Amino acid sequence: MESTTIMKVVNKDIKQSGCQASLAAVGDALYAIGGKWKLPIIVALSHSDKRFNELQRYVEGISAKVLSNELKDLEMNGFINRNIDTGFPVAVRYELTSYSHTLQNVLHALSDWGEMHREKIMKNK
Amino acid sequence: MESTTIMKVVNKDIKQSGCQASLAAVGDALYAIGGKWKLPIIVALSHSDKRFNELQRYVEGISAKVLSNELKDLEMNGFINRNIDTGFPVAVRYELTSYSHTLQNVLHALSDWGEMHREKIMKNK
Repeated sequence: MESTTIMKVVNKDIKQSGCQASLAAVGDALYAIGGKWKLPIIVALSHSDKRFNELQRYVEGISAKVLSNELKDLEMNGFINRNIDTGFPVAVRYELTSYSHTLQNVLHALSDWGEMHREKIMKNK
Repeated sequence: MESTTIMKVVNKDIKQSGCQASLAAVGDALYAIGGKWKLPIIVALSHSDKRFNELQRYVEGISAKVLSNELKDLEMNGFINRNIDTGFPVAVRYELTSYSHTLQNVLHALSDWGEMHREKIMKNK
């Protein structure tokens, strides 16, 4: 929904301006990693791989159903691996793929900006 | 909600690892520009300033009430200016502040990643 919205916006802008093609790529990015839960899940897994219940505790507020769907989605899009540790009891672990690490620049940019933004807020107070 | 979630995740990770302080900044960034509508609105205004109705057409699916609230929020946080053109009829225009342009790196990173991601998807097809 968010991604659809931004892509429409982006597409209109491209038609209007003819010079903002790169914004379409922003739409593509948000299509893949936008939404309410995907980045929180990726951040939660960035420290260490986790089991389903563990992940649900980390990403507070997410229901089991939604988490399950988001994990399927992230797996389908190559962001995470679902590993089954055969043993007793059988445990399923989720881990980031190497492809997830291509998001490093995005996370760095968000991180740098967030830090700068926090400092600005603090100064204004 | 999204930002609250990610900040909780981030805070836990920092406590656990002691080495991921920069992720807290990602949480701060998403607190300010996360959610469903903020980036679409910023993208819509990045081409040119717009009036309320115009903006509502660009950001498809947003209700007048939500757009109004998001604009107030963005104005309060220094991302947009609300200009009143006194004339007949009185027109209100929204424009990005120079502070919004500090988001350039974030948008570039998202754009680069989105382009790479699209190419990957295309190859897989």
